[in-house]
Amino acid sequence: MSARWTIAFDADDTLWENEQFFQSSKDSFTEMLASYVEPDQLHQRLTAAEMRNLARYGYGIKGFTLSMIETAIEVSDSKVPTSTIAAILKMGREMLDHPIELLPHVRECLETLGHEPDIILITKGDLLHQEQKLAQSGLGDYFDSVEIVSEKTPEVYQRIFARRDRPRAMMVGNSMRSDVLPAIAAGAWGTYVPHDLTWEHERAEAPVGSARFHQIAHLGELPTLIAGL
Amino acid sequence: MSARWTIAFDADDTLWENEQFFQSSKDSFTEMLASYVEPDQLHQRLTAAEMRNLARYGYGIKGFTLSMIETAIEVSDSKVPTSTIAAILKMGREMLDHPIELLPHVRECLETLGHEPDIILITKGDLLHQEQKLAQSGLGDYFDSVEIVSEKTPEVYQRIFARRDRPRAMMVGNSMRSDVLPAIAAGAWGTYVPHDLTWEHERAEAPVGSARFHQIAHLGELPTLIAGL
Repeated sequence: MSARWTIAFDADDTLWENEQFFQSSKDSFTEMLASYVEPDQLHQRLTAAEMRNLARYGYGIKGFTLSMIETAIEVSDSKVPTSTIAAILKMGREMLDHPIELLPHVRECLETLGHEPDIILITKGDLLHQEQKLAQSGLGDYFDSVEIVSEKTPEVYQRIFARRDRPRAMMVGNSMRSDVLPAIAAGAWGTYVPHDLTWEHERAEAPVGSARFHQIAHLGELPTLIAGL
Repeated sequence: MSARWTIAFDADDTLWENEQFFQSSKDSFTEMLASYVEPDQLHQRLTAAEMRNLARYGYGIKGFTLSMIETAIEVSDSKVPTSTIAAILKMGREMLDHPIELLPHVRECLETLGHEPDIILITKGDLLHQEQKLAQSGLGDYFDSVEIVSEKTPEVYQRIFARRDRPRAMMVGNSMRSDVLPAIAAGAWGTYVPHDLTWEHERAEAPVGSARFHQIAHLGELPTLIAGL
């Protein structure tokens, strides 16, 4: 009965590693600025810059790089040397170039689901970079459609799922805030696959009590979950 | 007979001003670095950085800002003060915030075409910023679909036009290289609407001799052109 379903996957930290590259860049950034500011304070300032710039820059590595440069100038009272700015630029370019590392069970999950359900990918972030990551992942052929969106709201999910002609839709991802809650609000199922590293901005309370909410340990458990619904 | 048509519009410098904001930022950038490098040489170095980074950053203001910072450090032999880097960041944020200025005859053209043809928008650049510009332009309701793509190739046009169920498609825009030539290569019509300011990367020879190539002075001439085809 899996032909009843549209199954939509988030990409970053659901199909492949992403946040770990942000984390290790933040660690290097902390070291670069260690003579000006304590790590905790630096993280607060960087997060504040990211949030301040989010409506303008959106998600993705270019905006993150610009926010790091802005923060480096701010916390050092403009004393940061240009060599550090150059190192931040280089770090941003390396993040954009990093190879794709698939998470465990991803390919097996997509293979098992097969071609009966309508399989789509819904991700936010830089259009070009997300397209490049999907191409590099080698997973492109499993997906019937790819939607790169600037925000994941209930309206966005509603619009996407309305276009697919299946009676049921499920969003699967590691972000309670962007994948699970708005999909459930849009009338779909929301399945949470926690990832060790999840950006604080993406965290939220689980919608316990919703019959359309599920949590699995990894994507290997998804085909069985869907078969039982 | 306009119901036969899908008419696709480019956005930047076809519907609204865009390149003028890049040009005036380049002028300010030139002034900021006047003590290190001659204007011509600076422009060459900036263009080289933009081209080098294009495959990674794609189109749009965030990538342009990162390339300006990279160039400022390069041409000054790392002597540029951080206050200049901060000024470049600020300039990038202001570019993202600039209000939309519609080009002449745009609204009139869309009004005259009406709802018989399938009207779509095909633009490259930052997903979030292009969505914001369309919302601010007040033109959103004229468009049946909006496609934000990372590159405008014949394959991309073919894929988009194949999904619209009209026998004829036309791409209308100010870039010979991205709007006209690949649309014609995809079997569609290509209509060139020159803009005084067009980024050098977007220039190319006109496909004179192609029966599906047309040139108009401004969008006010488009409805008559289409009525005669």
